[in-house]
Amino acid sequence: MLEKVERMVWLLDFYGPLLTERQRRIMQLHYENDWSLGEIAGEMQVTRQAVHDILRRAEKSLEQYEDRLGLVEKFRLDRRRIAEAYGLLKELRTGYHEGKANRVLQLLEEVLATQGA
Amino acid sequence: MLEKVERMVWLLDFYGPLLTERQRRIMQLHYENDWSLGEIAGEMQVTRQAVHDILRRAEKSLEQYEDRLGLVEKFRLDRRRIAEAYGLLKELRTGYHEGKANRVLQLLEEVLATQGA
Repeated sequence: MLEKVERMVWLLDFYGPLLTERQRRIMQLHYENDWSLGEIAGEMQVTRQAVHDILRRAEKSLEQYEDRLGLVEKFRLDRRRIAEAYGLLKELRTGYHEGKANRVLQLLEEVLATQGA
Repeated sequence: MLEKVERMVWLLDFYGPLLTERQRRIMQLHYENDWSLGEIAGEMQVTRQAVHDILRRAEKSLEQYEDRLGLVEKFRLDRRRIAEAYGLLKELRTGYHEGKANRVLQLLEEVLATQGA
């Protein structure tokens, strides 16, 4: 499981447009811009408790989208494969190695074999 | 723009879990299993017109998710890059070529540079 802030930034990046404008704005201020609940409350002219409730509801909503669609997890898994392939390719430029070359092809095959959700 | 059936299969694959159970089932029968509206109507014991309406509403819903999130388009773009990289790597195994090797790294860098939505 990702650290919560990083996880919320990912979920926002994928599913943020499905939140209400207000939820999305408050989530971005808190998780992307690191504003405190008090700062957001002052800016939006609502209580700190209201900000807290909006954040909890938005977080729950984003988690439900990921539960159903799983696209963040899938995307991150593919990205790890591609990052590994990229690192191996960099190493291969300094000297050919059959095992590494095979591994790169295997990683890309794994990415290409996965369908969407 | 993808041919409609292919596009709907992609959209279903990504966003299908956000449809109602009934919408999803009818969309799958029609677009994945190639059932006619009449066949679905017979199976579900509803009119052909009802099946037609459910399909139109579900298609619209899926398109709206893609309009907002754009994840299918992003995924397909990444996949084209990875498929090109994979093809070049296969060619490189039969003979080294600096330009092709550079292109592979560039393609993977492009994939790694993109964030979620």
